[in-house]
Amino acid sequence: MNPPHNGAEQGARPSDRVDVYDTTLRDGTQREGISLACEDKLSIARHLDAFGLTFIEGGWPGSNPKDAQFFERAKDIEWKHAKIAAFGSTRRASLAPEDDPGLRALLAAGTSVCTIFGKSSVQHVTAVLRTTLDENLRMIEETIAFLRAHGRRVIYDAEHFFDGFALDRSYATETLRAAVRGGAEVVTLCDTNGGSMPWQIEAVVAEMKAALGHPLGIHAHNDGECAVANSIAAVRAGARHVQGTINGYGERCGNANLCAIIPNLELKLDLRALPEGALRGITELSHYVAEVANLSPDDHMAYVGRSAFAHKGGVHVAAMRREPASYQHIDPALVGNAMRTVVSELSGRGNLLSKAEEFGLDVPTGAEVEVLEQIKEREARGSSFEAAEASVALLLRRSSPGYKPPFRLLDFKVIAGQREGVGTFAEAMIKIAVDDEVVITAAEGSGPVNALDGALRKALAPVYPAVRDIQLVDYKVRILDGRDGTSATTRVLINSRDAHRQWSTVGASTNIIDASWHALADGIEYGLTLAAREPQQYTSTLPASEVA
Amino acid sequence: MNPPHNGAEQGARPSDRVDVYDTTLRDGTQREGISLACEDKLSIARHLDAFGLTFIEGGWPGSNPKDAQFFERAKDIEWKHAKIAAFGSTRRASLAPEDDPGLRALLAAGTSVCTIFGKSSVQHVTAVLRTTLDENLRMIEETIAFLRAHGRRVIYDAEHFFDGFALDRSYATETLRAAVRGGAEVVTLCDTNGGSMPWQIEAVVAEMKAALGHPLGIHAHNDGECAVANSIAAVRAGARHVQGTINGYGERCGNANLCAIIPNLELKLDLRALPEGALRGITELSHYVAEVANLSPDDHMAYVGRSAFAHKGGVHVAAMRREPASYQHIDPALVGNAMRTVVSELSGRGNLLSKAEEFGLDVPTGAEVEVLEQIKEREARGSSFEAAEASVALLLRRSSPGYKPPFRLLDFKVIAGQREGVGTFAEAMIKIAVDDEVVITAAEGSGPVNALDGALRKALAPVYPAVRDIQLVDYKVRILDGRDGTSATTRVLINSRDAHRQWSTVGASTNIIDASWHALADGIEYGLTLAAREPQQYTSTLPASEVA
Repeated sequence: MNPPHNGAEQGARPSDRVDVYDTTLRDGTQREGISLACEDKLSIARHLDAFGLTFIEGGWPGSNPKDAQFFERAKDIEWKHAKIAAFGSTRRASLAPEDDPGLRALLAAGTSVCTIFGKSSVQHVTAVLRTTLDENLRMIEETIAFLRAHGRRVIYDAEHFFDGFALDRSYATETLRAAVRGGAEVVTLCDTNGGSMPWQIEAVVAEMKAALGHPLGIHAHNDGECAVANSIAAVRAGARHVQGTINGYGERCGNANLCAIIPNLELKLDLRALPEGALRGITELSHYVAEVANLSPDDHMAYVGRSAFAHKGGVHVAAMRREPASYQHIDPALVGNAMRTVVSELSGRGNLLSKAEEFGLDVPTGAEVEVLEQIKEREARGSSFEAAEASVALLLRRSSPGYKPPFRLLDFKVIAGQREGVGTFAEAMIKIAVDDEVVITAAEGSGPVNALDGALRKALAPVYPAVRDIQLVDYKVRILDGRDGTSATTRVLINSRDAHRQWSTVGASTNIIDASWHALADGIEYGLTLAAREPQQYTSTLPASEVA
Repeated sequence: MNPPHNGAEQGARPSDRVDVYDTTLRDGTQREGISLACEDKLSIARHLDAFGLTFIEGGWPGSNPKDAQFFERAKDIEWKHAKIAAFGSTRRASLAPEDDPGLRALLAAGTSVCTIFGKSSVQHVTAVLRTTLDENLRMIEETIAFLRAHGRRVIYDAEHFFDGFALDRSYATETLRAAVRGGAEVVTLCDTNGGSMPWQIEAVVAEMKAALGHPLGIHAHNDGECAVANSIAAVRAGARHVQGTINGYGERCGNANLCAIIPNLELKLDLRALPEGALRGITELSHYVAEVANLSPDDHMAYVGRSAFAHKGGVHVAAMRREPASYQHIDPALVGNAMRTVVSELSGRGNLLSKAEEFGLDVPTGAEVEVLEQIKEREARGSSFEAAEASVALLLRRSSPGYKPPFRLLDFKVIAGQREGVGTFAEAMIKIAVDDEVVITAAEGSGPVNALDGALRKALAPVYPAVRDIQLVDYKVRILDGRDGTSATTRVLINSRDAHRQWSTVGASTNIIDASWHALADGIEYGLTLAAREPQQYTSTLPASEVA
């Protein structure tokens, strides 16, 4: 049987085409700490579709009422590229498919594609399912045939396939044959426990391809930190369907990371997984999904991480200026990412000038030398500008003639303590100059920095209402040279954002409150200067990947 | 030439043995955001050595005065397992090795092993080094021969080898032959830009093994998320020396992660990389290095992550109860990790009882249950006891009948600020009970925590002169759940020491001053209770490696 084939745009030869199956919304949410509301799932699904994936697994309607709701809402959406798939298991032992509540829920989901998982391992059949080997084969075949009879396309996920194959290869192969007989268009071999090694995957996939002559897929987990390599190894052995999640989210160590697999397929194996040109959207997609899942994006992820093309070492930066390809395996623009030079004490003028270009700033001739001196001097006292690009931008702006800072700090005082019967408390008083007028105000907070933040916003809001749109999203503290104990220098990094952008600022002092105060004020000053200009003018001041 | 061979304990056949070369302290610190003080580097090196690695690269003495200081200090340490290696480059073009400042710095480091990197790629030789292909070959051979003549073992790192090989395989091979002629004991093929795929690595390593018949190593980066698979592929092709970093720290997307490679080598490839039984320490090592680098450990790391064996899905948890191996690829105890079901934190009384034994404490029957409750309750509010064993010991002591704390905290108040013309200031007032007498005192400091520390010592010194011997050696702050900005929970870890020992305590609060106050007070209480007993009795309460 030749199943209907999705996608295959842009005239790729069939063997060049890999179908990508995203399970972020189902397997991805098994990650500890992720919980997506139905609205979140719909929003992610829309982005995955616009990006150009072939299949989007929306959930397991039989196991979870929230998932059933997702499918209800998904029916009303016009999907551009993707087919929505609903996930479920083979029917229960000794139950007709039409009487199985899980399968009824699957049909009710109303998707054109259903994905069914079944057991491949004799151990799982007997010890977990507690049924017979023959009944398991019937469960697989009949479940798939039932869904096909109801007009569904069916993808079969062979759970624990590689472990099952190692235990009893002939039985494991029989389970796949049952799925093919039932009418599955693709048979996906799952490394459910994630501990297989690439050469094992490659050998088994090649053997199954020869034995079945049927389209194969791969579903890998990252328990040996080899999920990406395992997925690619399966494709080299002939699989043309790859399951994974955005950012590798998933239970335990995660699922195979599509944000690395897709660029590897397209750029290293010269296969087609996406519509023409879509790959450039992958960095933004990765950050978007992290944002919705309420997780900090991993800066060091391959291809899509904020640091994936960041260069810090002096030797590297010098070499990059002589030969741009010398420390990059691909052109970062191919995946919508950008090269960054990390500004630090090791920087030269060149670093700073290319930074000014990145920020779209006109720097008066020679001013970069002065700013570099300030950076070096402040780094010597404990600041670090490599993660505080907005502080660098402020230094560059302040060096421009005609720049007028929105406010100036004069004094601050913070009182924090604990009193028996009262508990802890924190209060801040501040004095700042706004438009040459001195403002003194105070606020309470959950801690001293929170109180300072509150007082600063209160003082600024009457003149700069935009301060209300600026939010603090992260606050990091590092003690430098810890051997001085509590009198060591403290470095504070603050991430702020408004509706469009996110930026980071730094402060350093032996007094942690003082360091926080300066990072806080820089963060707000930068946000106010952005807000004072046309938003679209500044949308490009930070790489696209920075913009949520 | 047959170079001296390190290690090979426990009678492994030579071909079963893989030398692990750690470069966390050099290549790992190229990661954006990592900066290690000399003391941090020494402490990590001691842990790596105790863990049983073969080589520890301490730094690049020719490029960085901080690294030179590390090697100076390292000379006085008796290393148990590891050889310390110093890193450097081939001599400059047209300069005799003895006149090259980098090579002089390398000799001054005084290590028995030197690692030299050189260029393999014609493009890099001409475009970056800007010298001739022949001169580059001489630079490689003469540099290594020079170090050999000074009695050093030499490891050669062939930078950009795989890219260079793709451009001009014959020249790339020639550079390795030059290294062998110079006397390098191992020739390490580096995937410097990190974009190679496992099958490419495997083919090239196999070809070089056949061509050179010389020990080979691998140094991989993670730009295609394949660094672990690439390292393992090289070993399968015959490499027996693997370079990487703890937790995969490194520039851009990181270096190859030893915390996944080592378990893969030992458990999946059945090779020996560590002394017998050492593998069980790898989870602790991973977390320890993250702690010192002030980075949150990645919970989802293969083998060592807190979630690596955590089960959340209902199906998985049910299956695990029927068949423990059903969703785990290995027994987590093999790597010192533990299975967790995510719903209920099953930390176990046993854990705590063995902790009490470690500390030499008599815990009254049943008290561990109560202490466990306290730990869970405090962890839920943001503390982390993993790196704060002295806080655990204090909880156990406080549960012993007859334990009388040396003091009790009543109130504190801190005032910190900045005033024009005056600069920053910080003052603390405290009220504590010492021997049922209430003491109120105050002190100034360079910051609010320093002022609190000063006040506490001042209050205690008349009754407990031993407080003068207790020093604070490190102070670390981590903001948990950074998304709440300045109102997030703050965790403070403090390391204290006296003449004999070093210990760590923890505090957590939304108010950073309050969190610091509790960690500070615990640190001093623990020190005073130690001082009240025979010093030698407690010398072994913390591993020797913890004592600076």
